[in-house]
Amino acid sequence: MAELNLLLLHHPVLDKNGLIVTTALTNMDIHDIARSARTYGVQRFYVAHPIKALRTLAAKIMEHWDSGYGSTYNVTRKDALSLVRLEQDLDGALIDLERQTGRRPRLVVTSARPGPGRLPFAQLRDELDTWDDPHLLVLGTGWGLAPAVMARADVVLEPVWGPTAYNHLSVRSAAAVMLDRLRGAR
Amino acid sequence: MAELNLLLLHHPVLDKNGLIVTTALTNMDIHDIARSARTYGVQRFYVAHPIKALRTLAAKIMEHWDSGYGSTYNVTRKDALSLVRLEQDLDGALIDLERQTGRRPRLVVTSARPGPGRLPFAQLRDELDTWDDPHLLVLGTGWGLAPAVMARADVVLEPVWGPTAYNHLSVRSAAAVMLDRLRGAR
Repeated sequence: MAELNLLLLHHPVLDKNGLIVTTALTNMDIHDIARSARTYGVQRFYVAHPIKALRTLAAKIMEHWDSGYGSTYNVTRKDALSLVRLEQDLDGALIDLERQTGRRPRLVVTSARPGPGRLPFAQLRDELDTWDDPHLLVLGTGWGLAPAVMARADVVLEPVWGPTAYNHLSVRSAAAVMLDRLRGAR
Repeated sequence: MAELNLLLLHHPVLDKNGLIVTTALTNMDIHDIARSARTYGVQRFYVAHPIKALRTLAAKIMEHWDSGYGSTYNVTRKDALSLVRLEQDLDGALIDLERQTGRRPRLVVTSARPGPGRLPFAQLRDELDTWDDPHLLVLGTGWGLAPAVMARADVVLEPVWGPTAYNHLSVRSAAAVMLDRLRGAR
């Protein structure tokens, strides 16, 4: 069974006009996605942001839940946040993951946009069950991952669809649905 | 095919000590769950809170996205928020739904706790496809729905599980996963 790791990327991502931007690091993203990661057996949840002051702030808030008052107030939150690792960018996450696992991770990127050669969820689910290489599933904030990140991927996962033509989920909701499709109890 | 409607309940729900409380109405819950509801073809997304001032505030914020500056800034958000209906409590939602559809809705409640007689997601998915009665899926905030709400249910849905013993998803994430299991493209 392959290790599943998650990366939430804040740069380079697109804004609504298709420009490359850096999005804000939000507490809610970290907390929600950490809970989903913990539920679905994700090994490490990387949160990458290029601005050091924001990473320091995020670390400070997580400390409250890890060893401050919050650690006794809400144990399930402490448990989830223990998966989080703050990094500067995609390469930081890849290097750490390779150092931790001793293998080059398979880079799986996500997009809400359709396109050619997208891997179906069911197939990636099977591959996670049968492969050995660690996987890194990359989620973009803002209006999605920049083309430069998409281009580096080993695999592009298919978009999440319901029965409608609308698929503008929040990144928090998309993360939960993707993990459920890949690792949920069936 | 049955209509699927959603209700996010802020009272009566449990706190972490099992006491009945009223939780805060949060903007993030409304926005995230509205996007999921829109993606998965939910007909109406009821948000029930007993405090009128908070419902008024929520209506004010939604107005910004519906007809204020936000309506041109972010059209997908306007589209999602158009599903939201603010009500005082469970009965308010049930009465409105019955008035809208002309039928008594089937009340489906959710819980992260295991228990006897829980309906599997796959079965409810089939029933939504084949039944005619409108369904109202009720989500609790805080530490979950109060026993008084659970007791009124026609059906209790099974909890969401991944491959671990941890299932403390945020209500935003749980809503997305549940809707995907019930209505996601397969």
